[in-house]
Amino acid sequence: MKKETISISTHSRTDFISVSRGVQTIIEKWGVKEGLCTLYVPHTTAAVFINEGYDPDVMRDLETSLEHQVPWTVGYAHSEGNAAAHIKAVLIGNSRQILVENGRLLLGRWEEIFFAEFDGPRNRKLIVSFIEG
Amino acid sequence: MKKETISISTHSRTDFISVSRGVQTIIEKWGVKEGLCTLYVPHTTAAVFINEGYDPDVMRDLETSLEHQVPWTVGYAHSEGNAAAHIKAVLIGNSRQILVENGRLLLGRWEEIFFAEFDGPRNRKLIVSFIEG
Amino acid sequence: MKKETISISTHSRTDFISVSRGVQTIIEKWGVKEGLCTLYVPHTTAAVFINEGYDPDVMRDLETSLEHQVPWTVGYAHSEGNAAAHIKAVLIGNSRQILVENGRLLLGRWEEIFFAEFDGPRNRKLIVSFIEG
Repeated sequence: MKKETISISTHSRTDFISVSRGVQTIIEKWGVKEGLCTLYVPHTTAAVFINEGYDPDVMRDLETSLEHQVPWTVGYAHSEGNAAAHIKAVLIGNSRQILVENGRLLLGRWEEIFFAEFDGPRNRKLIVSFIEG
Repeated sequence: MKKETISISTHSRTDFISVSRGVQTIIEKWGVKEGLCTLYVPHTTAAVFINEGYDPDVMRDLETSLEHQVPWTVGYAHSEGNAAAHIKAVLIGNSRQILVENGRLLLGRWEEIFFAEFDGPRNRKLIVSFIEG
Repeated sequence: MKKETISISTHSRTDFISVSRGVQTIIEKWGVKEGLCTLYVPHTTAAVFINEGYDPDVMRDLETSLEHQVPWTVGYAHSEGNAAAHIKAVLIGNSRQILVENGRLLLGRWEEIFFAEFDGPRNRKLIVSFIEG
């Protein structure tokens, strides 16, 4: 298993940062050709997902919708005040898989990989791993 | 890594289509016995998940609940008008894993694999891949 | 592929049970060092996820938020009465991946693995599998 960590600085409480290029660069550095890439977030108030990267309004709508579903302040029990960030992280999930073929991430035409911050700004890590298939 | 694409025609804006049989057929054609099957959706307004296939009312309730959580029209920024479909796709996720044992998908008794359309009708693809374990 | 099943007894309708120790014990019993661990739930009203295990209030808030988003009784079509449990299971998802390095699950500092029951109390199974990388 190959493994490398990407460092990410987020800039606001909710922040969706494209990491497609960073992940592809690691795949190329490794020189791997075919297999399964697993992205893993080792945090409990952040997540990773794949969706449209072309129109930034999509990410704005996603942020608004998640805030509507899981409001930041509605009298949570968790005393740190960031319960909503934990809940959003569980809903989106902290790992994703992408196939690699001919040394390239097999993303669809409009797909981009996003690191999702729900309790920023913070310094975060995304673990990129690869298993040859 | 083995890889094959299933073509799927969806018939309505939201459509949950069982693909268990199609995935199992590919596993058998490959003649593989043990390992990890990854299903990947290369679209940004569709998803894949695993849940009950026995009573079609479960899928009807899922559609209603998702529409309630993420209404189609509530003044989204994304000008294409399908922001809700992107958001639902992020919530469900665009990949799933299933174990393969003795050449069979290791699904639970009531489990079925569903391709989830959120912006149909369209012609879609589901990528089935397999890594020997 | 290595594979073993953990049996879990849940104690209430919604129940989030930490299984990190149980999964780590299996990894050690196998004596595996590096690769990809896949957790799989073969049920349609349960799920698996990774989040904070330190403050139990986080899980209480998650339960409340999910109940708010997907209320148990709002006139579902599914006649068994547990449609909300199916919907929550789809939203969270029935599988997760964790990297293994030097024989240890590569969990973040605050991360713990939770089995999520949405239609308990019941006797459940969680499948732990491993592919050497």
